[in-house]
Amino acid sequence: MRTVLVVGIGTGDPRHLTLAAVDALRRTDAVLYLDKGEATGDMRELRRRIVAEHRAVPPREVVVPDPTRDPEVAAVDYDRAVSDWHAERARRVVTALDSLDDDEVAAFLVWGDPSLYDSTLRILERARDAGAEFSVEVVPGITAPAALTAAFGICVNRVGEPVHITTGRRLASTAPEALRNVVVMLDAHCAFRTVAGPETHIWWGAYLGAPEQILISGPALEVADEIVRVRAEARERHGWIMDTYLLRS
Amino acid sequence: MRTVLVVGIGTGDPRHLTLAAVDALRRTDAVLYLDKGEATGDMRELRRRIVAEHRAVPPREVVVPDPTRDPEVAAVDYDRAVSDWHAERARRVVTALDSLDDDEVAAFLVWGDPSLYDSTLRILERARDAGAEFSVEVVPGITAPAALTAAFGICVNRVGEPVHITTGRRLASTAPEALRNVVVMLDAHCAFRTVAGPETHIWWGAYLGAPEQILISGPALEVADEIVRVRAEARERHGWIMDTYLLRS
Repeated sequence: MRTVLVVGIGTGDPRHLTLAAVDALRRTDAVLYLDKGEATGDMRELRRRIVAEHRAVPPREVVVPDPTRDPEVAAVDYDRAVSDWHAERARRVVTALDSLDDDEVAAFLVWGDPSLYDSTLRILERARDAGAEFSVEVVPGITAPAALTAAFGICVNRVGEPVHITTGRRLASTAPEALRNVVVMLDAHCAFRTVAGPETHIWWGAYLGAPEQILISGPALEVADEIVRVRAEARERHGWIMDTYLLRS
Repeated sequence: MRTVLVVGIGTGDPRHLTLAAVDALRRTDAVLYLDKGEATGDMRELRRRIVAEHRAVPPREVVVPDPTRDPEVAAVDYDRAVSDWHAERARRVVTALDSLDDDEVAAFLVWGDPSLYDSTLRILERARDAGAEFSVEVVPGITAPAALTAAFGICVNRVGEPVHITTGRRLASTAPEALRNVVVMLDAHCAFRTVAGPETHIWWGAYLGAPEQILISGPALEVADEIVRVRAEARERHGWIMDTYLLRS
């Protein structure tokens, strides 16, 4: 039976790798990359360097080209477009896995932790539904919220209180009590501006753990323009950005 | 200036340690243990073994005895009792740090990640308020929710949806929409029984990543009795338990 390792590698610091992740890389015959286009070439290169640090002879690389979403379907039925796209991606992963020998080990390297806003585990479930046979092992990784709060030296929760984790898209529809202490991921539009009040504090970070790391914190309304500007400049410079923030009222 | 490292070591698997955490252990002159009594002797021993794996000559150990909470104050004013207790603990940490030379590096080893339901960073803030001078570096660790979902091979969020993280104490007062997908920590009383309905699924895990790991999942109402029984037996056997669960409706 083939083994598929889904390895959390943290947020960009090669030292975020756990000893279990290093072991996983050493067992890997082939690294599978979901190719999300040119903008992420830089991100693939980063992962390649992380692998190379722990392997004298690097494992094979298998790039799974990402299907394009059909804008016409998406305009009419967004959910169906996403579902079609996932199905096609699963088919391509099945093809990629079929290129492995029966006893080989494949690995996906996932930014942060594979459980948090990452689609790899769902794609593998679909690949299995589509008839592929393999076992999955997940290696947990340093999450973006953990990297963010470590960079600022703060706790993510207030004493005994809850933490809410959501996306930029969902932030505006978050219940007021959950908004009191919320971590936002996958936000391309600085959605915090729509919910922040004079009492809201923000801790914002990008490229967490990497040499390019940027940190900005302060009253959200006061630092909003700076974050928008710095974020746009950094995204332009690198061709991509991964950022996360904590809002607290 | 003294340096205090606050190092997340994951949930019990020595391979949860990141390469940054290994570097931190190698820089450490003294490991500070907050002594929480006999029940955690086992847990201190675990940490000691983790340190020993990465140090030919182990660093010094400084045990900071935990103050006892005053039950009379706690009965009248719970918040004040907690605050007094934190203040006394901070004073003891200041004393412990004073025993270090000026250029030495001290480390606290924290289960999981230092940002999530851990008091070390707050204690250090109080120690600084009390006049101690030191710089703090936080090394993020594998969180209990990441270890839980890795063990089950699942995502912590549903596609694009939020995750709520709370405590057993707070679970019953959680808003219904946040209850749809919630991770619970620090729950000594299996509080999920008070909120679970026929549609609620639970993924429960204890000693995550350790050889003693226990996993139970299923419809919450159906597996509740099993979890209560298994949890009580394990706690009795080990003298302590750390467990976490995900509830989804």
